[in-house]
Amino acid sequence: MQLAIVLYPRFTALDAAGPHEVLGRLPDTETVFVSAQGGPVTNDFESMTVMTKALDEVPAPDIVLVPGGPGQGEQMEDGPLHRWLRKVDETTTWTTSVCTGALILAGAGVLNGRRATTHWLAFEEFDGLGVTPVRERVVMDGKYVTGAGVSAGIDMALTLAGIVAGDEYAKTLQLGLEYAPEPPYDAGSPEAAPRAIVKEFTDNRPQALWGRA
Amino acid sequence: MQLAIVLYPRFTALDAAGPHEVLGRLPDTETVFVSAQGGPVTNDFESMTVMTKALDEVPAPDIVLVPGGPGQGEQMEDGPLHRWLRKVDETTTWTTSVCTGALILAGAGVLNGRRATTHWLAFEEFDGLGVTPVRERVVMDGKYVTGAGVSAGIDMALTLAGIVAGDEYAKTLQLGLEYAPEPPYDAGSPEAAPRAIVKEFTDNRPQALWGRA
Repeated sequence: MQLAIVLYPRFTALDAAGPHEVLGRLPDTETVFVSAQGGPVTNDFESMTVMTKALDEVPAPDIVLVPGGPGQGEQMEDGPLHRWLRKVDETTTWTTSVCTGALILAGAGVLNGRRATTHWLAFEEFDGLGVTPVRERVVMDGKYVTGAGVSAGIDMALTLAGIVAGDEYAKTLQLGLEYAPEPPYDAGSPEAAPRAIVKEFTDNRPQALWGRA
Repeated sequence: MQLAIVLYPRFTALDAAGPHEVLGRLPDTETVFVSAQGGPVTNDFESMTVMTKALDEVPAPDIVLVPGGPGQGEQMEDGPLHRWLRKVDETTTWTTSVCTGALILAGAGVLNGRRATTHWLAFEEFDGLGVTPVRERVVMDGKYVTGAGVSAGIDMALTLAGIVAGDEYAKTLQLGLEYAPEPPYDAGSPEAAPRAIVKEFTDNRPQALWGRA
């Protein structure tokens, strides 16, 4: 089985790295990072540069994963990436995304008529893309599996791992990753976070903090 | 402020990527990946190659982070990495690790007499390294902050972010990362996971699955 993780300039590293750690450990799975040009691709705050193959080197992955990030907006034009996504989606077993990666899949036309989720702050960007937005952490609609913002990719991937390889295998992965989360605050959703923080985030999308976009 | 994340062959990517996503977004922080030789370094299951600087290019980071992974065992000999860790530790504000990264810090002598945590399966490897092992998800002893296995790095980093930049800032990060975890199983610790899975993991440390070591 081949897992292809799509990178592009200013992706958010954890969007990719969370599911990579889970899905890359599925039985007999080869994991490849892929980008429009191939070669090195750098994340949103310019700290992590990851090597990738070019799209035409990865013609038929079984699972495709599209992460989100501040660079997502530049990936909405029809072009080589969208064409590749449409083409590989014809034969994937699972087509997946994390965070605003769902907008790229939707922009490519791959999520037409599907239920999907994205980062809590990005829901209105589904408008006009033919998607039924669902405010859940993990949304499955047939072979399309989308996770909410950034860290939700871990939950998305464990959910998918259970379906692909069975509950026992997925639990073994969870134990190996020691994924028994204990966040020091309860501020991970706009419902739970202090009102002032949600307002500031929504009004300013703290650029200095978030991707230095 | 400079954050240096140490990589070495067969590191576990999420050990590094979790805290990277949090600590790299602290105010006015530059994040660099660093390795003994510099250049490309590849993770445990040979899927992710990340570019790094050489140790001598990063002489005085404010925060140092050492991730774990199947390659940790090859980093226990005294040598350039240990010398660098001892040297930079003299001036760091925070010296941190995730998972078996704590064993590398301990092997370098940096955790002498300190309380520290590591991956649940690695605790006996603290023997003889002068550390007081503590089975908690995040352990702070002065400026030494250690996280348990793999995904615990996110909790470690958010805890540290709150101390460095204040609770409000850390909560903003948590909201941005949409870190409101919903694991599909309750199997993330040996106490919670099914007995048979813990036994298999402990007996076989599923090599085929875990890092193909």
